[in-house]
Amino acid sequence: MTDPDPDPTVGSLTEGAILRRILEVLGPSSAPVGPGDDAAVLSIGDGRVVATTDTLVHGPDFRLSWSSAYDLGWKAAAVNLADVAAMGARPVALLVALAMPDETRLSFVEGLADGLRDACTALAPGCAVEGGDLTVSDTLTIAVTALGSLDGGAPVLRSGARPGDVVALAGDLGHAARGLAVLFDRFTDADGNPTPLQRDALTGADAAAVAAQLRPHPPLALGPAAARAGATAMMDVSDGLALDATRLADASGVTVDLERAALGDDPALSLGGGEDHGLLAAFPAGMALPPGFRPIGRVRERADAAVTVDGRPVEGRRGWDPYRDWDSGRG
Amino acid sequence: MTDPDPDPTVGSLTEGAILRRILEVLGPSSAPVGPGDDAAVLSIGDGRVVATTDTLVHGPDFRLSWSSAYDLGWKAAAVNLADVAAMGARPVALLVALAMPDETRLSFVEGLADGLRDACTALAPGCAVEGGDLTVSDTLTIAVTALGSLDGGAPVLRSGARPGDVVALAGDLGHAARGLAVLFDRFTDADGNPTPLQRDALTGADAAAVAAQLRPHPPLALGPAAARAGATAMMDVSDGLALDATRLADASGVTVDLERAALGDDPALSLGGGEDHGLLAAFPAGMALPPGFRPIGRVRERADAAVTVDGRPVEGRRGWDPYRDWDSGRG
Repeated sequence: MTDPDPDPTVGSLTEGAILRRILEVLGPSSAPVGPGDDAAVLSIGDGRVVATTDTLVHGPDFRLSWSSAYDLGWKAAAVNLADVAAMGARPVALLVALAMPDETRLSFVEGLADGLRDACTALAPGCAVEGGDLTVSDTLTIAVTALGSLDGGAPVLRSGARPGDVVALAGDLGHAARGLAVLFDRFTDADGNPTPLQRDALTGADAAAVAAQLRPHPPLALGPAAARAGATAMMDVSDGLALDATRLADASGVTVDLERAALGDDPALSLGGGEDHGLLAAFPAGMALPPGFRPIGRVRERADAAVTVDGRPVEGRRGWDPYRDWDSGRG
Repeated sequence: MTDPDPDPTVGSLTEGAILRRILEVLGPSSAPVGPGDDAAVLSIGDGRVVATTDTLVHGPDFRLSWSSAYDLGWKAAAVNLADVAAMGARPVALLVALAMPDETRLSFVEGLADGLRDACTALAPGCAVEGGDLTVSDTLTIAVTALGSLDGGAPVLRSGARPGDVVALAGDLGHAARGLAVLFDRFTDADGNPTPLQRDALTGADAAAVAAQLRPHPPLALGPAAARAGATAMMDVSDGLALDATRLADASGVTVDLERAALGDDPALSLGGGEDHGLLAAFPAGMALPPGFRPIGRVRERADAAVTVDGRPVEGRRGWDPYRDWDSGRG
């Protein structure tokens, strides 16, 4: 007789056994109908629901040499919660579709669930995982849907910025991208393949930047605060400030003029670096910004360039995206 | 100079270009905020939203030798719409997260969008794709979230069946499983690998069964109808009647006794075959069943067996699931 494996693979377990363990980790649901039926029933508060979905795929979006299961659960939650907050809404629930190889360990699934739960608690109190799906795949894939409530308010769209508005930001710029650069610089082999992240080897700014990349803490409660304060437009900065400000400018039919002085020591990184998931918003001139937002520019009448810095055009392209080059090696 | 490729790969296109094409295929949104912002805003009608997610993964869940892009879009919509309907709710919106290899053709994405749109129109009029996400993956993966409205009614759970209730079914039993058996019998090579489906080679019942497997038409409008009529419990039959009736019986603390005479010519297939996505429901005795439901048994006081046929226990295990054995070959 052999002892049962203390950390069995998911391929050796039934779906029901894996699900029970996940639900234990997540804790009890306070939804009208939580996990376990055909669908969840959630209280949304008024007659509208805000809904968004975003997927993390092993390879293009993360590497297991660098991200722990907890990091992945946290980040999968954070990037979706950010999209809800960027509408001015309060996140209410997550649905998590998890596709994973048979050889995945149960402890990995538990770590993911830990990260999902803790990110909700830290970034969007009151939000919880209320449903999901488990399936087998050769490629580890985490597809999260986030739902939110406007609590009677109007959604804040990308299209509402008006000339004269103040452009403001809550959260970091270029921090997560700097962390990714540290990972590529210090934790790859001669062929460019990822090697295990040694967190102890990192100190100071490098450690903080890597943490921002792997486990972002965007100030999401400021999304509803901005909506209540009267933000005219808002979006989350996921693909870099230059590109996302271009999207906001194009949707609003305006030009966004950023101040060089607001872009920090490394303006190229601040403009091009993605994945910080801070909130970019426009507010009517003359009003006090909600605490946590800082002014970074002005909305102007539409000119040739969608985005300028101190009046000079910048190109709104993606700064740097090494993941797209990642092919099929495992890491 | 060469002409542009009339059917480019998604890897040669920007995400924006792919998305524009998808939105053209899907047609205009009638949601308060449709695709294009950080999140969609949907009208739900009362203070609650029904939410569910389900994923189709190439390999375990479908094979490209057998399913067209249109089939996949249709089925991904249908299986999620069925879970909403099984709560007694009216589907309102789908969010679709699509992870696909770079070499995927644009026409494949268009076919998927066609299938998603047409399944909504046919199975849940008024429901549409209102958001989504595009990402790169080595494994083609379609993660769909469906949202629905209870329109002021109570959700119909698995747990409400009471001794004396009539057990009723709307939709087919074993039809989709028979179609899968036809595919494995006739469209695999000597090593068991899938070979291209030749639809012309199929006639009569075989053709209908394969269609039921690849493009199911469950009677989903009967979900809200059952709720209004007073169904005490309901769920969709996705994993076979025996297993799903066991789930309903366990959730309700009862035994479900099925009638052998209601299980057709091949009771084993009717009990074990999954993927028909019909609606299994319990109704108080003596009431007229909503049109489209037929009686198939009775709810009894809980006995040792969760499910019986003419009073004799049946095992509630999955009948047949060859996909789980599928490994890594492409087909």
